[in-house]
This record gives sequence, structure tokens and C-alpha cells, in this order.
Amino acid sequence: MNIGEIEAAAQRLEGRARRTPLLGSPFLDEIAGRQVLVKAECLQHTGSFKFRGAWSAVSTLPEDTSGVLAFSSGNHAQGVAMAARLRGLPAVIVMPADAPRLKRENTAALGAEVVTYDRATEDRDALGEALAAERGLALIRPFDDPRVIAGQGTCGLEIAGQAADLGIDKATVLTCCGGGGLTSGIALALEARAPRMKVRTVEPEGFDDTARSLASGQIETNPAMTGSICDAIVTPSPGRLTFPIMKRLCGPGLVVSDEECLRAMVLAFLRLKIVIEPGGAVALAAALFRSDDLDDGPVICTASGGNVDAELFRTALERYGDA
Amino acid sequence: MNIGEIEAAAQRLEGRARRTPLLGSPFLDEIAGRQVLVKAECLQHTGSFKFRGAWSAVSTLPEDTSGVLAFSSGNHAQGVAMAARLRGLPAVIVMPADAPRLKRENTAALGAEVVTYDRATEDRDALGEALAAERGLALIRPFDDPRVIAGQGTCGLEIAGQAADLGIDKATVLTCCGGGGLTSGIALALEARAPRMKVRTVEPEGFDDTARSLASGQIETNPAMTGSICDAIVTPSPGRLTFPIMKRLCGPGLVVSDEECLRAMVLAFLRLKIVIEPGGAVALAAALFRSDDLDDGPVICTASGGNVDAELFRTALERYGDA
Repeated sequence: MNIGEIEAAAQRLEGRARRTPLLGSPFLDEIAGRQVLVKAECLQHTGSFKFRGAWSAVSTLPEDTSGVLAFSSGNHAQGVAMAARLRGLPAVIVMPADAPRLKRENTAALGAEVVTYDRATEDRDALGEALAAERGLALIRPFDDPRVIAGQGTCGLEIAGQAADLGIDKATVLTCCGGGGLTSGIALALEARAPRMKVRTVEPEGFDDTARSLASGQIETNPAMTGSICDAIVTPSPGRLTFPIMKRLCGPGLVVSDEECLRAMVLAFLRLKIVIEPGGAVALAAALFRSDDLDDGPVICTASGGNVDAELFRTALERYGDA
Repeated sequence: MNIGEIEAAAQRLEGRARRTPLLGSPFLDEIAGRQVLVKAECLQHTGSFKFRGAWSAVSTLPEDTSGVLAFSSGNHAQGVAMAARLRGLPAVIVMPADAPRLKRENTAALGAEVVTYDRATEDRDALGEALAAERGLALIRPFDDPRVIAGQGTCGLEIAGQAADLGIDKATVLTCCGGGGLTSGIALALEARAPRMKVRTVEPEGFDDTARSLASGQIETNPAMTGSICDAIVTPSPGRLTFPIMKRLCGPGLVVSDEECLRAMVLAFLRLKIVIEPGGAVALAAALFRSDDLDDGPVICTASGGNVDAELFRTALERYGDA
């Protein structure tokens, strides 16, 4: 893959995806002891960066496509559901039965047919591929698809441009990393547009497949698929397309705890006035609470999604709202 | 006042204030039965539109200014505190003793000296003017200052441009209205740049001084200064400078309940992923729950601020998070 594919995706997304703001606060800078900038992808259509990749892929489908299928814990689901609706195509979405209610309901409300599976025992890839073949639908994978990676890469183009506007050309860029679609897309974009920026992945404790894969040099797998509040980024392993890109371009992976995610969510609420979900808060948590592990200079983190149920957000505010 | 003053303010704010996004969601459109767009000023520096007017005014002060003074329930306070800090000037802020904790703490953390007064019994204007004279400080009024109105008007320039990008040149524009600085600034900007847009004010029940003033044609006053959760927009009456502008350009005022504000805050959380405070939610509440009182067509509402304490936000999520 190359920057040309990301630039082409940016053209397809023009006027469709939002250019999300790069936010900051002196209060966050003080906690981190450095400048912290937050790429607020929670403000993207459907509440996560996933709309970028979804539209990038769905917009390239031929006119006679009979429909699309996606498997997703919820954010890719909503992105694909909205992209399909914009194209006037039916969408079938395979989601884990324990996906957050908000994500399930939104996906259905966007007009998609939702099919659930058991995250612990069933293989969503196999299920999705079988269903797509059976019904003659175009499968839109969550990350291992060049059109999807290119779409997520448009977020990196924006980061490069917005950072340059602030006079920043060198920084650590922290990404919330599941299968690596956003990470590899951003890394490719920055390689071309802001080569002095270094991308590092962030994952929840116990689900650090990418950090371990980057350390070992080969694709490693998580022992479990449940047990984190960061549902958006719990994937079995980095992708076959995304991992080689990350291996070439991304620095050592970082890991944060669920409690650190909840604290970061509350600080984003108090200081940036944005709503982020646990899986979208890992990068900010690392920026704020892992400063000692980062190179000097500004840090830019993706706030990759905001689809959190009210009840969990209340819990976060209860625990850390007085901090 | 005229559009030239707003354009000059826009030049002063260039690179200082954020161009906040104009957000929307199909889920909100469905509730309102029309297209709803939200100008997310909660994402402005210091969490409200007030930074615009504050920087517009403070940036024009002569080099030898010894400091600034402002009176404010909290958002103008933070805007002026940050603007003063950017100019390297000391700031004294007169705030009501019952202002939300987050606003008091942030104002102090931005380096300002905070002086408190009793909102029910003391006259903040008189107190502020006396203190400014005594200490030789430049008084930055919250709304009755042409530099401040012009700064808030830059929000209107952005609305006109962003709506045009979406193909919208005719709409109802709902503003969260306290003293009328934001409303009159936006109305002046739209008069010049989007004359088919109609500005209407929104206030909390029982504190509808502007709605009554627009109805009677003269400045009316609220009977009380406490008793609403919408602290940001509880002012005694529209301003001497702002009211004539509103009288000339703005339609009948609307009123919403505190509970409707809490519901609107939760819907902004769920659907837009932004944090808005009660006083910043009145316009969205009117867009969603007063559709019958509005002309046909799209509605654009200001989400004017997001400085809400965690405890009140939890209450809102508890009451309406399952909606």
C-alpha cells in the first residue's frame, strides 16, 4: 500500500466524512508534562473513525452490488451501516451478542440487519465469510482490506496537516489499536507527510496482541476475547495486511489498564468536552499516565470512538469525576 | 455595530480561536422531524464561545495595560482568564459564590484572581466597575462591549459558511441567550452573510427576560437571579447594546424547562459525543422539543458551553440515559 491509495480515499471521503478537530487543553498538558493533542474521531459520523474506512470501501463498490456484510463489535458495524445507507444498499452486520447496547441499537436504527454471535466460542471471520457467500453480499472487513486501511489513513493526513498548522512536525502519535486498520493507515500517511512523527500503538492490559507482535516480530494472538471494557479494540491478533505495515513503521506498543481508561474518559469530559468510549481512551490514557515511557516532545493521540453506554459513563464519572 | 467589526474580530481570532464543527445526527433529525445542526462551541478554548469575545477584546488592549477585570458566572471568566494569560496580563474575575466548582477552579487554574459575590443580593456590575476603577484594570464586560459582541459574531460567520457548505442558506438559528452577546453577534453576522436565516433566542423557564423584552419591545428584567440549573445564561436582563440589535433582527424568544435541558444534554452525549452544560443545551432542547413552534426547514442551534460538573452530568445520565 502507498500514500496514493490514501489520497484517493481522501477524495472519496471529501464532503462525506468530517474533518475532526485536533483538541488540546492546558490542564491535560500539565498532567502529562508535555503538549497533548487529541484527534477527536469520536466526532466523526457514527461516533468513530470507522466511517472513514467504511465509506472508502463501500463507495468503490460497483452499481450492481446487491448488498454489504460486515462483522464488527459495533463501531465498524455503524460505519458500514451508514455507508451502505448512503449508497442505498442493504447491510447485514454480524455482531457479538455482548456488544454495548448503544452500538447494537444504532446499527439496527441505521437500517442494517443485525446477526449476533458468541464472542467467546464462535469465529466471526468464518461466520461472516459464510454468510456473505450464501447471500451474495460484498464483505467489508474491519481492517484487512486496502480500501479500509486507506480510508482510516485519511485521519493521518489530517493529523499531519493540523499539527503543521500548530507548528508541530515532530511528535509521538499514539493510536488506539485493535486489528491495526487505523494504526497502519495513519502510519502510512505520516510516513509520507510527517516523517518525523513516530506512531506507537496502545492496547488494554491482557489484550496486547499488537504490542507482543511488534516485540516478537510475528503475529501473536490474545489468549481471551472477553474481559476488557475496551470492546472496540479487543481483536484476536493484528491483521495480515496491517501487521507488516505496523512492523515496518510503528514503535513499541504501550498498554494501559481499564481504570486508566475510565480516568482518561473523565478528563476528556472535563477538559475537552468530548465523549470517548473505553477503547477510544487508551491512547489518551497512555499520553497522560505513561509519559515516562515516551520520547520528549508533543504527543498526539487518537480518541477513536465515543460509543459508550450511559451507565458505564456514569460509573467513570462517579469514580473519577472529582479528580 | 456592523459586519466590518465582526470581520476585524475574525482576523484577530485567526489562529487563536478554534473553528468549531457543525455537527448533526440522523437520530436527532428523527426526534425533531427536521434537520438539526449543532454548532459545538463547547469545543472552543475554555469550553465555551466566550473565548471569542474575550480574545477579541483583550487583544485590542494597549501594550501598557496593567491588567483586566471581568464579572461572570464562569464561562466569560475562563475566556477572559485565558485571553489575559495569552497576553501576559494579570486578570481579576468577579464570580458568584454559587458558580459551578469546575468554573471557579478552572478560572483560578488559568492564573486569574477570583473574587466572589452573592448572586441574590449583590450587584455584580457595580462591584466589578468599582474594583476595576480601584485597581486600574481594564473592564471586559460579558456582553455590553462592541469588541465582545464582534468576537461572538465570528461564530455567526462560521455558521453561515458551514451551512453554505451543506447547501443550506435558509434556516432557523436558535441561540442560548443570557445577556445577548452571542445572539446579537450571530444575528449581525447572519444579516450580512446569510440573510435568509432567522435568529431566535432560547432561555430557561422563569428566566425569560429576553423573550419578554422582545415581546414588549423594551428591556424587561427577571424577578430572580437564582433557581435555574442554567447558570451560564441567567442574567438580569438583555444588554443596552445587545437588545436593540436583537429587537431589530431576532424572532420571538423560546423557553424550555430544566428537565428538557438535561434530556438534550444526554442526547448530545449519545448522538454527537459532545459534553454540553445546561445553559448550553437550551437551544438544542428547543430544536428537539419545540419543533411545533418553529418554521419549517433546518434548524441550527448553538451548543454554547460545556462546563458542567460531573455530578450534574451523572444526574442527567441517570434520568435520561436509557431514553
